[in-house]
Amino acid sequence: MISVGIVGGTGYTGVELLRLLLRHPQVTVRVLTSRTEAGKRVADMFPSLRGHTDLEFSDLNEDVLKQCDVVFFATPHGVAMKYAKGLVAAGVKVIDLAADFRLQNLEQFEKWYGLEHECPEILKDSVYGLSELNREKIKTAKVVGNPGCYPTTVQLGLAPLLQADVALIKPENIIIDAKSGVSGAGRKASLGMIYSENADNFKAYGVAGHRHHPEIVEALEHISGQKGVFDQIIFVPHLVPMIRGMLSTIYIDLTEEGANSDLQSLYEIYYANEKFVDVMPANSSPETRSVRGANELRIALYKPQPNKLVILSVQDNLVKGAAGQAVQNMNLMFNLDEDTGLTGIGLLP
Amino acid sequence: MISVGIVGGTGYTGVELLRLLLRHPQVTVRVLTSRTEAGKRVADMFPSLRGHTDLEFSDLNEDVLKQCDVVFFATPHGVAMKYAKGLVAAGVKVIDLAADFRLQNLEQFEKWYGLEHECPEILKDSVYGLSELNREKIKTAKVVGNPGCYPTTVQLGLAPLLQADVALIKPENIIIDAKSGVSGAGRKASLGMIYSENADNFKAYGVAGHRHHPEIVEALEHISGQKGVFDQIIFVPHLVPMIRGMLSTIYIDLTEEGANSDLQSLYEIYYANEKFVDVMPANSSPETRSVRGANELRIALYKPQPNKLVILSVQDNLVKGAAGQAVQNMNLMFNLDEDTGLTGIGLLP
Amino acid sequence: MISVGIVGGTGYTGVELLRLLLRHPQVTVRVLTSRTEAGKRVADMFPSLRGHTDLEFSDLNEDVLKQCDVVFFATPHGVAMKYAKGLVAAGVKVIDLAADFRLQNLEQFEKWYGLEHECPEILKDSVYGLSELNREKIKTAKVVGNPGCYPTTVQLGLAPLLQADVALIKPENIIIDAKSGVSGAGRKASLGMIYSENADNFKAYGVAGHRHHPEIVEALEHISGQKGVFDQIIFVPHLVPMIRGMLSTIYIDLTEEGANSDLQSLYEIYYANEKFVDVMPANSSPETRSVRGANELRIALYKPQPNKLVILSVQDNLVKGAAGQAVQNMNLMFNLDEDTGLTGIGLLP
Amino acid sequence: MISVGIVGGTGYTGVELLRLLLRHPQVTVRVLTSRTEAGKRVADMFPSLRGHTDLEFSDLNEDVLKQCDVVFFATPHGVAMKYAKGLVAAGVKVIDLAADFRLQNLEQFEKWYGLEHECPEILKDSVYGLSELNREKIKTAKVVGNPGCYPTTVQLGLAPLLQADVALIKPENIIIDAKSGVSGAGRKASLGMIYSENADNFKAYGVAGHRHHPEIVEALEHISGQKGVFDQIIFVPHLVPMIRGMLSTIYIDLTEEGANSDLQSLYEIYYANEKFVDVMPANSSPETRSVRGANELRIALYKPQPNKLVILSVQDNLVKGAAGQAVQNMNLMFNLDEDTGLTGIGLLP
Repeated sequence: MISVGIVGGTGYTGVELLRLLLRHPQVTVRVLTSRTEAGKRVADMFPSLRGHTDLEFSDLNEDVLKQCDVVFFATPHGVAMKYAKGLVAAGVKVIDLAADFRLQNLEQFEKWYGLEHECPEILKDSVYGLSELNREKIKTAKVVGNPGCYPTTVQLGLAPLLQADVALIKPENIIIDAKSGVSGAGRKASLGMIYSENADNFKAYGVAGHRHHPEIVEALEHISGQKGVFDQIIFVPHLVPMIRGMLSTIYIDLTEEGANSDLQSLYEIYYANEKFVDVMPANSSPETRSVRGANELRIALYKPQPNKLVILSVQDNLVKGAAGQAVQNMNLMFNLDEDTGLTGIGLLP
Repeated sequence: MISVGIVGGTGYTGVELLRLLLRHPQVTVRVLTSRTEAGKRVADMFPSLRGHTDLEFSDLNEDVLKQCDVVFFATPHGVAMKYAKGLVAAGVKVIDLAADFRLQNLEQFEKWYGLEHECPEILKDSVYGLSELNREKIKTAKVVGNPGCYPTTVQLGLAPLLQADVALIKPENIIIDAKSGVSGAGRKASLGMIYSENADNFKAYGVAGHRHHPEIVEALEHISGQKGVFDQIIFVPHLVPMIRGMLSTIYIDLTEEGANSDLQSLYEIYYANEKFVDVMPANSSPETRSVRGANELRIALYKPQPNKLVILSVQDNLVKGAAGQAVQNMNLMFNLDEDTGLTGIGLLP
Repeated sequence: MISVGIVGGTGYTGVELLRLLLRHPQVTVRVLTSRTEAGKRVADMFPSLRGHTDLEFSDLNEDVLKQCDVVFFATPHGVAMKYAKGLVAAGVKVIDLAADFRLQNLEQFEKWYGLEHECPEILKDSVYGLSELNREKIKTAKVVGNPGCYPTTVQLGLAPLLQADVALIKPENIIIDAKSGVSGAGRKASLGMIYSENADNFKAYGVAGHRHHPEIVEALEHISGQKGVFDQIIFVPHLVPMIRGMLSTIYIDLTEEGANSDLQSLYEIYYANEKFVDVMPANSSPETRSVRGANELRIALYKPQPNKLVILSVQDNLVKGAAGQAVQNMNLMFNLDEDTGLTGIGLLP
Repeated sequence: MISVGIVGGTGYTGVELLRLLLRHPQVTVRVLTSRTEAGKRVADMFPSLRGHTDLEFSDLNEDVLKQCDVVFFATPHGVAMKYAKGLVAAGVKVIDLAADFRLQNLEQFEKWYGLEHECPEILKDSVYGLSELNREKIKTAKVVGNPGCYPTTVQLGLAPLLQADVALIKPENIIIDAKSGVSGAGRKASLGMIYSENADNFKAYGVAGHRHHPEIVEALEHISGQKGVFDQIIFVPHLVPMIRGMLSTIYIDLTEEGANSDLQSLYEIYYANEKFVDVMPANSSPETRSVRGANELRIALYKPQPNKLVILSVQDNLVKGAAGQAVQNMNLMFNLDEDTGLTGIGLLP
């Protein structure tokens, strides 16, 4: 059994990790920390866990964490980087669900997160945890930076195009119109997040800039092997009055080669062996509820004009967009079947 | 492996049965019927099932059903009673999620469902499938009538009181103010059920009478062994703008013995060994989301006046209130651990 | 024109007052205060007001308030009582939407609100602003305590019974199962109020006691002229995942006279001349959305048993339950037609 | 007083027309027809109207309609064109809220609506009712085709750019990512529209083509005076789990002139005198709830790249996107102040 520690278990990614890990056949959750709730039973905070665990929140004790096989950080940005070095030195693997190990570009990290990175040498050796695209590196990684939710939909939505042998798209002209459920903003008391401000309402947010933009750019550069061509990407996130779910509508200008290619087949072949990526038939319209609670991402393509491609990419932001992909990465790191503990079917309706 | 047939797989209880049974370690779903969708892949109708099953809907073929070990009817009222006799004769167990085998009182059945019962002799031998209360009989039953969703919350909410040695409550004075999510009304095209008629709205419905009223009365008589004392129960259901979830608030007049008893302990002891019934600490307020997608029912008690008891009883109407309890009954009927395939944790948030 | 001041304009009752008063043909809103937002344009906080007002929030300046004809307090509890005396002395009428002038019983006020009352002599002369029941007194009142939202549904729901010549009901046995949209909890940053904690969820709250309980008891005593008989009322509020709307389901034990009376006619006659109270036909089911945004309360009666009455009473908690009734009281106090500025039709769907 | 007839009053645009017209100071609603509900009181179908009107639905009687000053058609497509000729001959003005008089291109009309047009000569003389853009023609029109909801957001969102003296944008490269609340689909019983299929869910729809696409193309050609350049517009509508509200996010490639222009000022000047179009400060994020129930459209601009413009355009699909604009057009046609009866403030929260 893999001995697991979770740092920061009071947010939505924390409770989602628990939902998955408490049912994972190869895992024992050994410790769960919280700065503010130490001593409290986790099931008292999250009553869905009543009867499923007697775990209590504890103060963060580095010695206890060092006795784990792997530690997940479901914390605010800037926490994992304080502990990663010590844990790695103790032979403990680290999976960070915040942004500390997402961006290799330190300047961008400091610009967008307002933090100086505390362990750049660990960052350099860490692996970006988009499971399907970096699988082999993740298997041997000591530290994994779990991707942001929006970037996951974009990368899996674009990878087949970017890794094709010929230039299928014009990379400087990508538009990402993204929509997320409210849980993506986390579990914290703020006026903008209360029910009556969000229900029966729709809006764009972060219009002047969003932290996931540099992550998307860096990731697409990595996937395509092309530097500098994605800087002009337009990324506009919107807030949907629903709890879970994320849909990115991606608008692409095709090259002549792209316009003449069978892109549907390209995607189907590219993802043929992936358990968690589903290429739907052309002209389908993936619904967020089709992946509610499941570690799945569904993609559909259509071509409204001969040289234009629209990609629809949906996931549950808390599962494939966060906790589920983190568990998928853990499975890779411990040489388990990639879907161990992740075969749950989405909750519909 | 248990070979399972599902008749009527296009409703919400049907897809919920599939979600549970496709992950049940002892089950193979052999056949899934639909009058209207024969030949269609079930995953085309319910995209949450894409990648999890290649099942197609088929026409109802009695010979095929007879090769199953058990057949679930997730149909409108009046279908199961047409096939139960033949299936039983062929040695096939039957679990009906509609009302055909809920009411022993044929007069009430005909009054409320507008149907003449077609196999009263099978009905007589059938067992009412409230798992916790009729466990031993269910184990050997050939036909199980799975309870209605509201009646499940009421029976489990009241059983400890009704089965106590002394008279703790005044049975003629029970008030049930019940609230359900919209999925309880099923998956059918009707004006009253469309989004814009239900969202951001709350109302009572069925104020002049509801089919679950006679089921509650009959069930409470059975549990308590007392005839005629529950006829005056008041039952008022309400519609909540949410998909899943049900809360019954039950108001009780206590007798002097009741007022002087430790009812919290009574409940905790009564349900101490039940995996799916959770007695919360006194004065708790169970939330429907704490059981979203889980086969659980949570109860909390409080006493606003010395001789008044308020019982809060919540479940997911599609799980413990329908498909989950049906699987629980199947487990009992096939001598499996009662929670086989039912250990999933609720989806929160 | 009536010169109006609003103290505390950043909450939901504040913006609702503005929505109504900015369109009131006899009103000029002269000043709008906020402790935290002074200097900010109100339309920047509430963009629905863009184009409708240039008002800015200002610091609370007692001298400015004293130049108004009437001052509304849409503040937390405990603010109005600090200023009422001075305003009354200056000839300014006061309408408090918080609780400072709801309870005549000082002990109850201090118990439930944790505040010592600062102007008991003003309280004594103040009038409880349930417009339909206290109309004549309101007309000449200097200070009006606007009722709580739940108590409004209960009082208007019960008044015809309580003011009948004969005893129609058993007052000691009233059960109020109440349900409110989330806006009733106000506009403040707290974890329990965020979207993902409330959407697709239903629960009871305040099970161990709610501030509106003593207000209901005192008000029913006042209406009926009977002291002490309502102490055992059971009041259980629930939270509905919707923004606006409130439904109280009230369960009544009828006396023999009550059981034999034509209660439907009693209600219809009682409210025949009321513009804002609508008695629906028997067995109707009033929906909260039928009064969304409107200063209306709808009532329906039904008798599930010969000696039991169920009353359904709905309103928009922010309108008839708060700001609308406050404007109705202002109209009374200034001898205007009672529906001036309050004739808007509910927003459906 | 203007004598008004409404044909087809049982849908959401019908009840919204009634909400507005029953409070319009210059209007008497004389007749309201319904094929299916003749004889029924409209307030029985829409309880928000109880106390506000005694109108009954009647069968469509052309003679009665001919006694009106103006007839609104809130019907399915294809009804208004059957009666327009006769009504015009009788001197009655016609405002159609369906599509019969939106498209001048008969081929497109027949392709997208599956109907042969029955009065092309009336169509030719009819005016497209985008009030702000066609004001002068509307004033003297006999027949007005009220715009579709999506096209309204797009036209008002783009008009200042398209009517500038120089070429500011590349018209062939416009992308419209639009999002609508569910009421836009109307009030009809269909499986895809029920609550449990739409709540807590988000999806694109009409991905292979939507009827509003040709309307947008024709309208932009008209506004800009340029033919053929808008054929490649990409239009992807999405469905938001909310009742009312519509947001179009429009992506524009700017020409060099466009990139160097002060577009914010351009918009502010263009709409300076419009009562119902609000240009928000740059980088604002208009929320749909800011116009809930109000005849307003809010626009915000931002430039994520020097040569890229993003336009956010929101409205209430049932008001400025349907019934409100229809009343605005009526005001123009009868030489009333354009905002008569349309000054209601949005319902927030």
